[in-house]
Amino acid sequence: MKIDTRHPRDIRRDIRSGKITGVTAGRGQGYVQANLAVLPRDLAYDFLLFCQRNPKPCPLVEVTDAGSPEPVGVAPGADLRTDIPSYRIYKDGVLADEVTDATPYWRDDLVAFLLGCSFTFEWAMLDAGVRLWHIEQGKNVAMWRTSIACRPAGAFHGPMVVSMRPIAPADLPKAVTASSRFPATHGAPIHVGDPKAIGIDDITTPHYGDAQEFRPGDLPVFWACGVTPQAVALASKPSFMITHSPGSMFITDVPNSALAAF
Amino acid sequence: MKIDTRHPRDIRRDIRSGKITGVTAGRGQGYVQANLAVLPRDLAYDFLLFCQRNPKPCPLVEVTDAGSPEPVGVAPGADLRTDIPSYRIYKDGVLADEVTDATPYWRDDLVAFLLGCSFTFEWAMLDAGVRLWHIEQGKNVAMWRTSIACRPAGAFHGPMVVSMRPIAPADLPKAVTASSRFPATHGAPIHVGDPKAIGIDDITTPHYGDAQEFRPGDLPVFWACGVTPQAVALASKPSFMITHSPGSMFITDVPNSALAAF
Repeated sequence: MKIDTRHPRDIRRDIRSGKITGVTAGRGQGYVQANLAVLPRDLAYDFLLFCQRNPKPCPLVEVTDAGSPEPVGVAPGADLRTDIPSYRIYKDGVLADEVTDATPYWRDDLVAFLLGCSFTFEWAMLDAGVRLWHIEQGKNVAMWRTSIACRPAGAFHGPMVVSMRPIAPADLPKAVTASSRFPATHGAPIHVGDPKAIGIDDITTPHYGDAQEFRPGDLPVFWACGVTPQAVALASKPSFMITHSPGSMFITDVPNSALAAF
Repeated sequence: MKIDTRHPRDIRRDIRSGKITGVTAGRGQGYVQANLAVLPRDLAYDFLLFCQRNPKPCPLVEVTDAGSPEPVGVAPGADLRTDIPSYRIYKDGVLADEVTDATPYWRDDLVAFLLGCSFTFEWAMLDAGVRLWHIEQGKNVAMWRTSIACRPAGAFHGPMVVSMRPIAPADLPKAVTASSRFPATHGAPIHVGDPKAIGIDDITTPHYGDAQEFRPGDLPVFWACGVTPQAVALASKPSFMITHSPGSMFITDVPNSALAAF
């Protein structure tokens, strides 16, 4: 994978002009990447409340003012309508379009939510010396819907989705402490060990992503996953919603290290 | 001060029946106490967004469903209309009444916000062996409005209010690490040292609370303060608002230790 080490501002300019397309992995090294969910103002209160009540799967890093596409808190000057390589447009919960520029779909009543993603806590774990099989193998993580119910809020309810990474026993304590420093990107694991305890019957067959390989002694370690908020929002069939396309994230100006809780 | 070590459920029952009145300090040892702000649903989105954007001064521990006085997340079965010793009722930003039962003022469109308070991080610091002058002397902390602007959200804007505690240099690292474990109750300090750097001209004259005494070498340490959200909400002159009376808090079922971030 080619690494793009430029400042996010420069990368976003190339995304906006169409020079850069596709997934954002490997771009903006060391900067927080975020999931996008855009909803009309009349649904935004329930969604904001849902995120407040479920901070592990739904860690907010930014909420824009209604109608404004500028995430002033994490990337002043950026435009959320154009600075992501690819968008999905949903109408009544059904995929209606996939576009590289969401400007034609923008409305004065839209609120954009940016949610932290696993790239940040994976960076913290790698930095701490934790081995991550899926990164070494160039695979995606494994993800499941669980038997853990999110706390509902208005129109929004559903199960927590988790990601799983096999972790060596000697690495486990560091995996927990390194990820826990970043609650804004899912924080520490929500479960370690027996998959059945959280409603996962078959650890070899994920609902999303790639099956993982366990080295001898590896424990399955589960983190709350950013797939949760999108899945929950779509399940309620909102009249209108914009999201990023999978893997095609918004790159903020916030260094991963700056997101450490204090 | 007489210490009431019963479970919060039993203490709230006595508050509800009128057997317990006054401030809640010393009651429900080891359990999270919370600030109350109740606003109509049409202002609740802006206030929720304000708290999301300013988590250090406005750490939410609970937001109720509109119309429901039950904080199901932190004290199932409790009633926020009756389980606090004293309430203040504001109309158009002006104090209109002070009551021990808010039931007559309750409405179907009200949303209750519970915000973490300094009791929890002070408990963590005392537990870690940090000496706190105001507790040894039975005084209040010192508080100031600062030159630090909160990030605005809709109708709500204003300066961050901070509390200040003199801390011995040898205690400072523990004061930081112990409080940082509790971001839901203001977390780590926002400033250490020179008061003028955050707009405080006279460290001997607080805007609220009691002046503090510095032992030789003590540093002034500043934490974001829960006075901020109430001051900010009132400054916008909301049509209607209910708060707890100063010092007369809501006692949750959540042990302080359970609020540690992970």
